[in-house]
Amino acid sequence: MDNKNRGIRGLGVVIGNLQAGPRNAITDVPGVKVGHITLDDGEVKTGVTAILPHPGNLFQDKVMAAVHVINGFGKTTGSIQIDELGTIETPIILTNTLSVGVAVDALVRYMLAANADIGLTAGTVNPVVAECNDGYLNDIRGGHVRTEHIFAAIEAAGEHFDQGAVGAGTGMSCFGLKGGIGSASRLLVLNNRAYAVGALVLANFGQLEDLRVDGRPVGEKIAAKLKTEPSPDKGSIIIVLATDIPLSERQLARVAKRAAVGLSRTGSYFGHGSGDIVIAFSSANLVSHYEELDIVTTRMIQEAKINDVFRAAAECTEEAVLNALAFAATTVGRAGHIRRALGDFSDFIGR
Amino acid sequence: MDNKNRGIRGLGVVIGNLQAGPRNAITDVPGVKVGHITLDDGEVKTGVTAILPHPGNLFQDKVMAAVHVINGFGKTTGSIQIDELGTIETPIILTNTLSVGVAVDALVRYMLAANADIGLTAGTVNPVVAECNDGYLNDIRGGHVRTEHIFAAIEAAGEHFDQGAVGAGTGMSCFGLKGGIGSASRLLVLNNRAYAVGALVLANFGQLEDLRVDGRPVGEKIAAKLKTEPSPDKGSIIIVLATDIPLSERQLARVAKRAAVGLSRTGSYFGHGSGDIVIAFSSANLVSHYEELDIVTTRMIQEAKINDVFRAAAECTEEAVLNALAFAATTVGRAGHIRRALGDFSDFIGR
Amino acid sequence: MDNKNRGIRGLGVVIGNLQAGPRNAITDVPGVKVGHITLDDGEVKTGVTAILPHPGNLFQDKVMAAVHVINGFGKTTGSIQIDELGTIETPIILTNTLSVGVAVDALVRYMLAANADIGLTAGTVNPVVAECNDGYLNDIRGGHVRTEHIFAAIEAAGEHFDQGAVGAGTGMSCFGLKGGIGSASRLLVLNNRAYAVGALVLANFGQLEDLRVDGRPVGEKIAAKLKTEPSPDKGSIIIVLATDIPLSERQLARVAKRAAVGLSRTGSYFGHGSGDIVIAFSSANLVSHYEELDIVTTRMIQEAKINDVFRAAAECTEEAVLNALAFAATTVGRAGHIRRALGDFSDFIGR
Amino acid sequence: MDNKNRGIRGLGVVIGNLQAGPRNAITDVPGVKVGHITLDDGEVKTGVTAILPHPGNLFQDKVMAAVHVINGFGKTTGSIQIDELGTIETPIILTNTLSVGVAVDALVRYMLAANADIGLTAGTVNPVVAECNDGYLNDIRGGHVRTEHIFAAIEAAGEHFDQGAVGAGTGMSCFGLKGGIGSASRLLVLNNRAYAVGALVLANFGQLEDLRVDGRPVGEKIAAKLKTEPSPDKGSIIIVLATDIPLSERQLARVAKRAAVGLSRTGSYFGHGSGDIVIAFSSANLVSHYEELDIVTTRMIQEAKINDVFRAAAECTEEAVLNALAFAATTVGRAGHIRRALGDFSDFIGR
Repeated sequence: MDNKNRGIRGLGVVIGNLQAGPRNAITDVPGVKVGHITLDDGEVKTGVTAILPHPGNLFQDKVMAAVHVINGFGKTTGSIQIDELGTIETPIILTNTLSVGVAVDALVRYMLAANADIGLTAGTVNPVVAECNDGYLNDIRGGHVRTEHIFAAIEAAGEHFDQGAVGAGTGMSCFGLKGGIGSASRLLVLNNRAYAVGALVLANFGQLEDLRVDGRPVGEKIAAKLKTEPSPDKGSIIIVLATDIPLSERQLARVAKRAAVGLSRTGSYFGHGSGDIVIAFSSANLVSHYEELDIVTTRMIQEAKINDVFRAAAECTEEAVLNALAFAATTVGRAGHIRRALGDFSDFIGR
Repeated sequence: MDNKNRGIRGLGVVIGNLQAGPRNAITDVPGVKVGHITLDDGEVKTGVTAILPHPGNLFQDKVMAAVHVINGFGKTTGSIQIDELGTIETPIILTNTLSVGVAVDALVRYMLAANADIGLTAGTVNPVVAECNDGYLNDIRGGHVRTEHIFAAIEAAGEHFDQGAVGAGTGMSCFGLKGGIGSASRLLVLNNRAYAVGALVLANFGQLEDLRVDGRPVGEKIAAKLKTEPSPDKGSIIIVLATDIPLSERQLARVAKRAAVGLSRTGSYFGHGSGDIVIAFSSANLVSHYEELDIVTTRMIQEAKINDVFRAAAECTEEAVLNALAFAATTVGRAGHIRRALGDFSDFIGR
Repeated sequence: MDNKNRGIRGLGVVIGNLQAGPRNAITDVPGVKVGHITLDDGEVKTGVTAILPHPGNLFQDKVMAAVHVINGFGKTTGSIQIDELGTIETPIILTNTLSVGVAVDALVRYMLAANADIGLTAGTVNPVVAECNDGYLNDIRGGHVRTEHIFAAIEAAGEHFDQGAVGAGTGMSCFGLKGGIGSASRLLVLNNRAYAVGALVLANFGQLEDLRVDGRPVGEKIAAKLKTEPSPDKGSIIIVLATDIPLSERQLARVAKRAAVGLSRTGSYFGHGSGDIVIAFSSANLVSHYEELDIVTTRMIQEAKINDVFRAAAECTEEAVLNALAFAATTVGRAGHIRRALGDFSDFIGR
Repeated sequence: MDNKNRGIRGLGVVIGNLQAGPRNAITDVPGVKVGHITLDDGEVKTGVTAILPHPGNLFQDKVMAAVHVINGFGKTTGSIQIDELGTIETPIILTNTLSVGVAVDALVRYMLAANADIGLTAGTVNPVVAECNDGYLNDIRGGHVRTEHIFAAIEAAGEHFDQGAVGAGTGMSCFGLKGGIGSASRLLVLNNRAYAVGALVLANFGQLEDLRVDGRPVGEKIAAKLKTEPSPDKGSIIIVLATDIPLSERQLARVAKRAAVGLSRTGSYFGHGSGDIVIAFSSANLVSHYEELDIVTTRMIQEAKINDVFRAAAECTEEAVLNALAFAATTVGRAGHIRRALGDFSDFIGR
């Protein structure tokens, strides 16, 4: 399952100049794991994707993090505390918009089970849940995501994971085609050591005419062939960026902003109705919940070296969106709604 | 039930110079309603408070709104979309920290039931839920708030409502004493018309020694009598500000920031562990979900006139915190933990 | 001087789908004027560009405005007050980084001369000055911009203005080529009335290899021909967006964020060293300094209609950057440094 | 010149519980220096105050910093870059509002003289200048601050400095009385080592009736005696917080927000017309302009220990405002305008 020859690369497209990691996925960042639960049954086209920033107890050892809101027509939870404290202390859960409450509740229960002191001596816990609206293909009003699905997605997390119409991406649409989960990674060398930057997106935005593949107006051509009416951009995208490069919370926020570069290049205008949210974390500095020292030491990249991390974040995001499209299969969902696979139009993609 | 002779005013304290409204409560703002569900049974000391910005369908006719984060160690949901669009489209639900997921899910279901087009043709809905940690008095890990409690709090909403250890305030602590729900209001005249500004707080912050009542160091005196050890400020406060004055979203954000003035004067230092969140809305400009015009007309206060609104917000917030203390009765909760009523120390309060 | 057949369009490139205005420049927005003073003498390669949001007294009748910081390695002044009050009350001055102080001082003097009450009964005034670093071509340490140049640029403002290596753009570099001033516009119809959106950029960012023209990797080809070493992106860009569409301050901020879409598509990664600042204003609602009413009426676009404004802002920004390149002539400046004109490489540009 | 028996302490008032430093001034933070130039000649009542974060070359070794805008009706420069990079690289200059341009220009020239590479190989420099409007007492339109005054204030900087109607404070008003420069400090122990937190304010805000001294309504009493008409709060305050405690940029922003607590307690409502700006820096981590390592190590306080720093910031700010009032002498300025000294009303101040 070598993604370097699959996804958009399998269609002959390589984004940017930096080298991809061995999996070309967010799990090239050491310790990061991803798990899916896919609910695909008739009009039920939804699911859950869990991202684990490191394999240990996240409440005890938090990762430094930042959130960047590209466009805030979204319901992501946990952002206020990430802004204030610069840390994430739970798995990151992706699901459909109307299931956020269930996911928050399940994630809290999961954390309570793993940490007997939450709510007693250790304060509370900040669940991070992000979402897109899969209502075009999915019976989103039906509330099909349940507590056990959140638990199962976390438990399923590993270094290998599928892309396309899986997990939270099962019912998502992107540029009028079938969207979903996509990922990509880039490698960097600092102080003679290799580091990785990875992106995972839940792609559910855009209108067909706007799609660009490595700068080429592929969407226009597909639209001309399909003779579809333009429909307004109503979707959203969640972009999760991970790295093992030492970055401060401020630097993570800077990196998160560069996801917008990659997103723009796929053809997005950050549409009004789109909740375009970026969550970035680094596993390089862990913040202990039970720290005993008054003064702690952290590491960060020297600011003048951050440009390559910006470039990596932009490239990963652009390629992850294209991978979401390239991995997804044509899907028929609620009310007979159809989203075609980008792969059906491979003739339009090459140079 | 005239609050103008009860609460902190019943103890002889009047905050500020502006005139209070007839109820001295957030419901002096026309159309605003408040409902509580109180769960008080042994170690269960929690509940739900619902604030309805106007009596109509909030999804169809949204209120302009803003969120201001004084200190972000909190889990309030909905803030990203309020920041982006400047509107609130659901009732505002207050409850305990670990019940936010249940409240989000219930609020979504409530909105789905009232709006058949959500998730189909009308996009999704942005639930606004705010919280404090009542774990000192309440079995917060037990998850006692359920879906039906959220529905019931909304259904219970009216112009008259109790303060102190009720609703979401049932298990809250404030300055080491019993906290909970408090409210206050102020009247202003603009263009020869009367308007109201009201605050409702869920007060759960502070350490005893710091409590100030109208500038007087009442907390020091109570602490000296009780001979308690200082304990760190670990709580939070949710401050909801309502008005019928025409204010733009930008102006609402400015007003929300002045809640920090009132909060500071009660003795808060915006403690590290405190989620101090302000939600402000005006019912003067309703934003229709189905607007047909391309260009709409709104009203706003002339900027140079906003100082009185600032003063009103600060005074209301300070008095609402003191009312939360003054209305609350001594409570014994989880593990035999006790929070005393401020009213037990009325000798220390007067000038 | 029809820009619709000059600049990047003269090289056969049309960006996006929306219709350009008659001048394809920011001055297609009624009332907006632009003036330049060019200082071009040996190692002096700098200047001043003034943008007048409307032809009246800006202090008395302010325009609604917003600032968006894409990357904050910049020295733009006035942003704090624009954020707070949502207005601009002076001409917008662009110049080199080390001349900001002179420009602020001159702009204040200009405003004092035009408004006898500033500093006495009318409060002070908020000068808006933005900058890029032209030190590669210009003797920036020499401080060649003087007070009278600011005055002269304001006085020179009109509806027709030059682009390329003029005014504040005289010494600027962009993608390793000659940059400077560029502009573009788009037309929209709302409620059966025509409106304009215009951009003016001071383009001074990017590295050659990254340049994209309508998605095509033109920079790579030029770099291959020139065999230059890649140099780090150290520049900046100031993007001024103008419109006569009624937009609230919040909506203007949303529109300003879409400048990042256009910027990304030219090849920018929002480089670390780049002060990428967007200033957006609408002349539709003027805010009177001497307003007598307590409550005022304003107009704003219905939110669901804002997508076309986003698209217009993105298209204008992308085309304005390309116009800055396309209009600029090869320039030899300080220390014999050379920046070539994009026009010298027209073979690489067409499809 | 022991401030611990002078200023507001000389009038019998001690703010808060924490111990003041030996000078009870911002210069208790090791390495911080302050210099004034006072222009006091008839209707000229203005000046300059310079704060040096450390005694070395600030451009080469920057201090970590943050800006917090309490109310943004102000013209402080440099904030965009501080937000982005989290550093200050120049002395901080305070002066009157209309002299900001002169101060920016002078500060740039000062930095150019000290650093031959600025503008050539080392990028540009970000001047930090903050201001209040002294137009009530000073001929602010006259532009009396000149380049040499900025240089002289920097050169005059030392560990001992005057407070009250000196430097930038010469013409400032506060609560309808004579305001100006005030300072205070607090000591903290972390990991068995002593650290200092210091504040310096340029106080020029408030209306007399609102003044509170340690919670007591002193302003009401003075107003009753003077029988003055209430006048609107039109001023501003600049608050500079310094410390040698290791704090990250994010933590510095958190500390800066607590200045609002101290400000609120003096009676401010963060008036509409007031530019209330906080600049906070720590000298614990210096950021080298010529850093050679890719990854650098920094120190920060363990988050759970930050409450005492919050308290110190709030106490210092409150006391610094009261010191500005207590040190200032009655001043007659432009147009015969008079501002009385708080010290004239010492009878009203004591408990």
